[in-house]
Amino acid sequence: MKLRLYILFLVCCSGVNPGFSQPGPSLIMTPSGVRTIQENRGKAPLFDQTLSELVIRVDQAMSEGIDVPVPKDLAGGYTHERHKSNFFLLQEVGILFQITGDEKYALFIKETLFAYRKMYPTLGLHPEERSYARGKIFWQCLNDANWLVYVSQSYDCIYGWLTEAEREELNNELFRPMADFLSVETPQFFNRIHNHSTWGNAAVGMIGLVMNDSELVERALYGAGTTSLSTTAEDNDGARIKTNDEMGFLAQIDHAFSPDGYYTEGPYYQRYAMYPFLIFAQALHNKRPDLGIFQYRDGVLLKGVYALLNQTNSAGEFFPINDAQKGMSWLSRELTTAVSMAYYYDDRNPSLLSIIEKQERVPLNQTGMSAALAIAGGKSQPFLKKSVELRDGAKGNEGAIGILRANSNEDQVTLVMKYAKHGMGHGHFDELAICSYFNDKEVLADYGAARWVNIELKDGGGYLKENKTWAKQTIAHNTLVVDSKSQFNANVRKADEYHPRPYLFDVNNPDVQVMSAIDTNSYQGVTMHRTVVLIKNESFENPVMLDLFKVTTSEVHDLDLPFYFDGELLKTNVKLTPENEVSVLGDKYGYQHLWKQAMSKGEKVLKGTWFNEEVFYSITTTSSDEDEVIMGLLGANDPNFNLRREQPLILRRPNVTNTLFASTVEVHGHYSPVTERPINSHSKVESVEVLLNDDCYSVVSFTAINGASWTYAMCSSDSSGETKHKLKLKDQKLEWVGPFMLTFNKINKSKNDK
Amino acid sequence: MKLRLYILFLVCCSGVNPGFSQPGPSLIMTPSGVRTIQENRGKAPLFDQTLSELVIRVDQAMSEGIDVPVPKDLAGGYTHERHKSNFFLLQEVGILFQITGDEKYALFIKETLFAYRKMYPTLGLHPEERSYARGKIFWQCLNDANWLVYVSQSYDCIYGWLTEAEREELNNELFRPMADFLSVETPQFFNRIHNHSTWGNAAVGMIGLVMNDSELVERALYGAGTTSLSTTAEDNDGARIKTNDEMGFLAQIDHAFSPDGYYTEGPYYQRYAMYPFLIFAQALHNKRPDLGIFQYRDGVLLKGVYALLNQTNSAGEFFPINDAQKGMSWLSRELTTAVSMAYYYDDRNPSLLSIIEKQERVPLNQTGMSAALAIAGGKSQPFLKKSVELRDGAKGNEGAIGILRANSNEDQVTLVMKYAKHGMGHGHFDELAICSYFNDKEVLADYGAARWVNIELKDGGGYLKENKTWAKQTIAHNTLVVDSKSQFNANVRKADEYHPRPYLFDVNNPDVQVMSAIDTNSYQGVTMHRTVVLIKNESFENPVMLDLFKVTTSEVHDLDLPFYFDGELLKTNVKLTPENEVSVLGDKYGYQHLWKQAMSKGEKVLKGTWFNEEVFYSITTTSSDEDEVIMGLLGANDPNFNLRREQPLILRRPNVTNTLFASTVEVHGHYSPVTERPINSHSKVESVEVLLNDDCYSVVSFTAINGASWTYAMCSSDSSGETKHKLKLKDQKLEWVGPFMLTFNKINKSKNDK
Repeated sequence: MKLRLYILFLVCCSGVNPGFSQPGPSLIMTPSGVRTIQENRGKAPLFDQTLSELVIRVDQAMSEGIDVPVPKDLAGGYTHERHKSNFFLLQEVGILFQITGDEKYALFIKETLFAYRKMYPTLGLHPEERSYARGKIFWQCLNDANWLVYVSQSYDCIYGWLTEAEREELNNELFRPMADFLSVETPQFFNRIHNHSTWGNAAVGMIGLVMNDSELVERALYGAGTTSLSTTAEDNDGARIKTNDEMGFLAQIDHAFSPDGYYTEGPYYQRYAMYPFLIFAQALHNKRPDLGIFQYRDGVLLKGVYALLNQTNSAGEFFPINDAQKGMSWLSRELTTAVSMAYYYDDRNPSLLSIIEKQERVPLNQTGMSAALAIAGGKSQPFLKKSVELRDGAKGNEGAIGILRANSNEDQVTLVMKYAKHGMGHGHFDELAICSYFNDKEVLADYGAARWVNIELKDGGGYLKENKTWAKQTIAHNTLVVDSKSQFNANVRKADEYHPRPYLFDVNNPDVQVMSAIDTNSYQGVTMHRTVVLIKNESFENPVMLDLFKVTTSEVHDLDLPFYFDGELLKTNVKLTPENEVSVLGDKYGYQHLWKQAMSKGEKVLKGTWFNEEVFYSITTTSSDEDEVIMGLLGANDPNFNLRREQPLILRRPNVTNTLFASTVEVHGHYSPVTERPINSHSKVESVEVLLNDDCYSVVSFTAINGASWTYAMCSSDSSGETKHKLKLKDQKLEWVGPFMLTFNKINKSKNDK
Repeated sequence: MKLRLYILFLVCCSGVNPGFSQPGPSLIMTPSGVRTIQENRGKAPLFDQTLSELVIRVDQAMSEGIDVPVPKDLAGGYTHERHKSNFFLLQEVGILFQITGDEKYALFIKETLFAYRKMYPTLGLHPEERSYARGKIFWQCLNDANWLVYVSQSYDCIYGWLTEAEREELNNELFRPMADFLSVETPQFFNRIHNHSTWGNAAVGMIGLVMNDSELVERALYGAGTTSLSTTAEDNDGARIKTNDEMGFLAQIDHAFSPDGYYTEGPYYQRYAMYPFLIFAQALHNKRPDLGIFQYRDGVLLKGVYALLNQTNSAGEFFPINDAQKGMSWLSRELTTAVSMAYYYDDRNPSLLSIIEKQERVPLNQTGMSAALAIAGGKSQPFLKKSVELRDGAKGNEGAIGILRANSNEDQVTLVMKYAKHGMGHGHFDELAICSYFNDKEVLADYGAARWVNIELKDGGGYLKENKTWAKQTIAHNTLVVDSKSQFNANVRKADEYHPRPYLFDVNNPDVQVMSAIDTNSYQGVTMHRTVVLIKNESFENPVMLDLFKVTTSEVHDLDLPFYFDGELLKTNVKLTPENEVSVLGDKYGYQHLWKQAMSKGEKVLKGTWFNEEVFYSITTTSSDEDEVIMGLLGANDPNFNLRREQPLILRRPNVTNTLFASTVEVHGHYSPVTERPINSHSKVESVEVLLNDDCYSVVSFTAINGASWTYAMCSSDSSGETKHKLKLKDQKLEWVGPFMLTFNKINKSKNDK
């Protein structure tokens, strides 16, 4: 606290020019924004604290001097990392110049920019040849565009402070050439509908706005014209480089987001992509209010922020859908900008303030000041996440991500199912895969990407080979594998053409929430219909998941359904026989990375209990002695130890046509090594049984050890809410209206429930 | 806060008998203690808060009624867990009766005790036959003794409140028979020098003190006479049951602790064993002040508390020496009692208060009130852990545990070496093993025990088979394995006869701390001499460990030195070749549980970097192309999935006589998936080299990538501080006084240090 006050004092009193009155900035910082900030210093602790910390960090970095090395390295290497830290620093120094008026900041930016101005014209393409679109400062244009998005903001902050001659020189010798390079000279980078192009568009547009270069702004908004490109060219992720008629920033917005703000590559990339979308939008809002950019497509940009916030566990970590480094969260730099912006430009939604409080910093512009003042004024409210279906596709009709949640605040259970589009180059072959959480703990875990972002020791920080050979493959996910192959035989282009069909999303009853989707394309001739039900009932400590995976096919297939639990297996009801010499499960589609540790024949009901980080997890699933139970172990054919040694339980059902996998997954109890007293360590589900599975209906019952029982019936061919259904089973008649029914029988059974 | 006040109000005003004036308790609670508590209510928040929480918990438990079921189950089963929760509850209810005077508490105790009184005479031995000393209420006498230690305290709290007739009945029909059963009737349990017997002694002594039965107290203090027992009988841990001439509580104190308060079974068991030692001591202090129990053997009981506190990482978790469930810490119930007691009976050391603050509760007696008042008075000071050697053996001459620490508060590096006694039935065959920590993170990890304490799903919560076949074996530890066998061929009795010889423990220079010990017994004809040096230097972000493992032998042996790192392997400088079909490393001594995942020939210098929980770890070790490098994977021959899938790096040096393993281990840098910016991810050690290794001397040099270099020289045959040493090496002369020397050469080498 003392330190903080001291720093504030420094900020107020260090060599300022209090009469500083050059023409103000106009891009992100604005004259009125700067005025608002200066008027409210000392009134918004979160803003003041962010500023104080920035002053310390920036002054330290500036004291280490300027270095603008000749580009040479890949990510992780010195020149790459240095240019990267340069652009972050320049943006921050610009902010400090505007807020404090201290010319040392402006001078630093000027000197650095002139160092770049001196070097840039001497540069050819970057010597590293890996990229489909090589940059000049970095190995790929993407990073050059990152540089320009940040440096535009910095340049804008000193634009009025520079002399006319200085501006001319920088415009003509550095920025305009760079903008041309990133657009007309590299159309395969600039004119796609892709997150790389979004960065390119924003970079070119923002520097255009700073220089009042309307040609660049038009290029950014509408693309750099058509150019002949090979129609089979691919980028480094194996995705096709197509330049459409549609291109430019507005087309990116049209195509990148669904009407619900979902971004088809998934939240990890959306988080990354949102920054250029939002920062360029903020600049357009300030300099081109005529475009009404935040209202564009029903305000889809700000909907995108909410879509991101909803795709998180209770710690704010994004669901690792498609390529994603696990652990990335709403605490990231990009979300710090995005959430304050959503607060300011949308509806000053007070529940966003509680997230900003967790971020513990605000962007140092008027959006951040506005949020910090509101927090200081006690306006913050909890952000309550609800069950939601986020539709995919520009028109919202190409599948979806379904999210079921029970308990908003404590002991939150979250179930996620992907039945959205594949996700292009960063997509995984995981349609109908689920992952789930108990607060911030993974229950059924998705692997995420095989990549250590920016860690040079792991192949320079880029995607590892195992990302393709393992992480993207179907067996790496909590979904069905047919005949030991991946969906679409792991063909990205094929996968990009299809999407599952949302069948049902019903969250009207908080105690029985249902999501359901059908996939008929991932495997030829196989209809997969997965239904996930989240049930709250006093028989269970936490809400229970009922998972029905129905397979309909005329040919005979071998089916594998894996369940990925973290932590230690405590017990199964089948006796697992370990393999003497551990063999590999297959030779492709990810199976080459799995060892077969142990196996068993199935029982009528298969049960297993796991323990991880003080909590117990149990699965109970229908099986038979024709099934095999495999305990896998990840790590085979992994010479560089790139894979985590995870242990899936795989239920293998060979030689079947139509079948239904029915399972419950429970989260229960607690155990700490300090108290050593287990609480509720046993599963409360006694059994699960399939009562009927035909072309139209699936009926499943399950019972708890306290004697309560449930019957879930569902029509799989008619999701209308009005249709009446009648079914006669062996010893009961079922009648209901609408696609599904759950009956609950609380039987007074006196059973010793330990 | 509101809740707390409300509860305090309840405590003050609920159906009390304010004139309650029966003869006071005398065992743990005393009349003056109760008075002190009542006078200071409201002045010591930590005490008040502990009390409020207890009232809620106890009232809830009492409302569920009394159940005293006929004994039937093992640990984890209903009758076991119920009798266990009964004794904890009775003790707590007794405290509430004394503090509040509310007779509902006394009545509850009386009714419960009479339920036991009714059942006890009907009981034979417990039906489960597993134990070498079967109990009546529980499957083993140990648990019956636990019961009596706690229930004695409860009984004492209502002793004066009961009628003479009630006391007579309980004394004669329940407690005296139980005390006889646990002593004279089960001598193999009562008369050993063993933690089981400590519980037995305390139980019998405490009930004796309550009943003023001096015969029982004598028995507790001095043993239950000699009895003929088979001289080869073993307990359930495979340890010999010997009843010495020495027996009883005072003999336990004589034998259990070294003069430094170290307990030979290790801190996990010491924590458990301390409770009966301390609680019986507190009772003796109150009722038999003539014994001066807290001064006995130079105050060794309270030294034991300090020894425990020093055997922890920065989170207070005990070093998992010998059988130990990892994660057990100074937050445990037992330490809550112990630390406040040490505060009260020793020297009111204010640094203990900071630990009590972390415990967030105090014992509800005068020791706890005293600590809570001191904390409220702002007297708490940090508990600074220093480097310390804890000698083992009753006389302190049977080996030791060495602990080196650098940085008391933040970024604390802790190195632990075991060169103490084996540790009896709970000992591991791990002489000269090290484990180390960076704050609370494990760097070189010890496996701990293969056991899930109290988790019924894992073999009833007892020791798993793999505790013997894996966790105790030498290969499971960070120490040398000779010829793929465990030390002493895994023979407990043999191992108990010997201990390594402490060679050197020098912590005078905080920047160069050394511990060193010699083992000549674990492997016949092999002298092992391990020296661990902890070096602080500006070349390294954190203090670095230099580890020298010197082997001297006339016969040729195969040597394995494993390093257990948690987390993910990022990179090694040797190319690891994965095995096609993963094979098991051996068929006994723990090797049967290790798969050989990958191997390689060694290089001159072997380097590897790991990542775990946001931190990087690197090892650099001398090797050669005659060495093999094996990446192991734990989990073979583990049908019940009882073992964690850990991955040791094993350096295998076949066919050698004299050799020296020299390694550095670094902790460095930081990486978070939110910022994705690695800091200091590369090792700073460039190489390690053995310059000399003969019968008398070992000289090792290592260099940092910034060009700094070090030479460590040590005489292994003379640890005198006065001896002068001279050595002539290839290109340098070394001269020094005392057992070791470390020279540091800071060379100005301009090397691009990324």
